[in-house]
Amino acid sequence: MGEVKGNNEAFWDLSYGLYIVTSREGERMNGQIATAAMQVTAVPPKIVVCLSKETLTHEFVVQSGKFGITVLDQEITMQEIGPWGFRSGRDIDKFRNVRYKIGAETGVPLVLDRALSVLEAKVIQSLDVDTHTLFVGEVEGAERLREGKPLTYDYYQKEKKGKSPKNAPTYHG
Amino acid sequence: MGEVKGNNEAFWDLSYGLYIVTSREGERMNGQIATAAMQVTAVPPKIVVCLSKETLTHEFVVQSGKFGITVLDQEITMQEIGPWGFRSGRDIDKFRNVRYKIGAETGVPLVLDRALSVLEAKVIQSLDVDTHTLFVGEVEGAERLREGKPLTYDYYQKEKKGKSPKNAPTYHG
Repeated sequence: MGEVKGNNEAFWDLSYGLYIVTSREGERMNGQIATAAMQVTAVPPKIVVCLSKETLTHEFVVQSGKFGITVLDQEITMQEIGPWGFRSGRDIDKFRNVRYKIGAETGVPLVLDRALSVLEAKVIQSLDVDTHTLFVGEVEGAERLREGKPLTYDYYQKEKKGKSPKNAPTYHG
Repeated sequence: MGEVKGNNEAFWDLSYGLYIVTSREGERMNGQIATAAMQVTAVPPKIVVCLSKETLTHEFVVQSGKFGITVLDQEITMQEIGPWGFRSGRDIDKFRNVRYKIGAETGVPLVLDRALSVLEAKVIQSLDVDTHTLFVGEVEGAERLREGKPLTYDYYQKEKKGKSPKNAPTYHG
């Protein structure tokens, strides 16, 4: 926790969704769970995502300047979430047994299994924040596939008893 | 919605909290509702907040390089939220009838009414994203005051039938 005076619990009261952020570099595709994603302007619509520099998805976003976001249904199982959160695309092909489509505007893969909505964006700015990078993307395509309750980080933790990997922005040991 | 192909509903599936972001400039204090706030690194703990350039709070954060965040209890009433979201500190003193304390680490005011947690941060980076600015703050103080259910933007909209002002990052008309 560095130099913070006080207690960690305050951080746990911040609210997040839980998304799959995807990207590609040439023929290689990858994706990972991210909680730190939000819209930052309405006109034009821009979204920021925060990714660990250690991840393959980070590498692909830097190289391609594009990313996709899948908003997940809260009915997703822990087994379905698993590969996206705790495995690296350097070791497995995360898209092997997954339904996805190629975003018409950017060419990024968009995961369709347990998806409520998908968005695809072109990176127009980025900010190095030490261990992570903030990528600001202008949204070029957005589609709600069906209605449902979006998975939140709170629901993932409390109802699904889910954990966070060590390189998550919100990791607290 | 600019050039986006698709539909707006995809944006509505992103999840947010609903916070009061505060700042001060000399003796003047102000604060506003913000939904776009999230932790971006764990070590050291940093938080990014996104504020409209039109707001007085934005002005104070630029001038002072400091901000506070209050995580609200979902039991807060619409009447209590009102001044923080739909009035400008240029017209009213938002702190007049509110319990608050001065953050020991940064000197920013931290709203205590209906507060679950408070955090205070020093701005170390910022990114201009047209109508809004992303302020990255290193958290210098964090305190959970009591346990409870943090107010989310989803709960505000669905249970409290709350609306958004036009300069919100998530405004969709």
